[in-house]
Amino acid sequence: MQQAIDLSIQNVANGGGPFGAVIVRDNEVVATGVNRVTANNDPTAHAEVSAIRAACQREGSFKLEGCTIYTSCEPCPMCLSAIYWAGISRICFACTKQDAEDIHFGDKFIYEEMARPIFERAIPTETFMRQEALQAFRAWDEKTDKVEY
Amino acid sequence: MQQAIDLSIQNVANGGGPFGAVIVRDNEVVATGVNRVTANNDPTAHAEVSAIRAACQREGSFKLEGCTIYTSCEPCPMCLSAIYWAGISRICFACTKQDAEDIHFGDKFIYEEMARPIFERAIPTETFMRQEALQAFRAWDEKTDKVEY
Repeated sequence: MQQAIDLSIQNVANGGGPFGAVIVRDNEVVATGVNRVTANNDPTAHAEVSAIRAACQREGSFKLEGCTIYTSCEPCPMCLSAIYWAGISRICFACTKQDAEDIHFGDKFIYEEMARPIFERAIPTETFMRQEALQAFRAWDEKTDKVEY
Repeated sequence: MQQAIDLSIQNVANGGGPFGAVIVRDNEVVATGVNRVTANNDPTAHAEVSAIRAACQREGSFKLEGCTIYTSCEPCPMCLSAIYWAGISRICFACTKQDAEDIHFGDKFIYEEMARPIFERAIPTETFMRQEALQAFRAWDEKTDKVEY
């Protein structure tokens, strides 16, 4: 966790957001990440997502079972979901989403939005063409050589 | 939406997951994306996240205000959060998360996990060293030339 915190502090000096993450397996660092949203024009480049991408490239796998992620702040819903998709086994965080809110990072708002019914959220949402789109799901279902996850 | 659906069908044939997304501004396609999780060993490479990254690179911005995202399936919590972070103005989706569940994509499980108290979730979670980590937030707060988002 000290390394994740050190990264978060250094990243502020390097023009990034105040967030750092370290992914560890068997006491060995697999990869690290920092927030590069504004530096790289990538709204998905949060510390945890960046660390997950780097760890998966290093491991040659889209799964990180057995890994722990140490993150300097409670993951936002995007990063938390990425942690689930990656199959990470344990999460350790330091600052809270309220702390992030206090310096104007809107994690808490997104958590609140998630909890609202789809069509009552702040971003207007519509649905249509479900029948047409289900063709892809049928193609997937029928495919015999697919890589499932 | 037809283009997003076409991409999702083509992507199954191309070894990817059955998901496609198109980002549009003023009736012009800004970028498209497909699911390349297993193909690229990147658990974050969902169609929507891929489209957002591509659109931001094209626009030279970490914000996509005024854009609509058309996605062949209801966004998972990771993609939905990425849509919020990107400031996208409107969401249109075709298949539902229940449809995704039916072909064994675990979006629904992650939505359920989000709604649970942090320390009762399936992935064991701990928190410590908040005071040390708050140093980065103070450094951010005091920085005068930062790019906020």
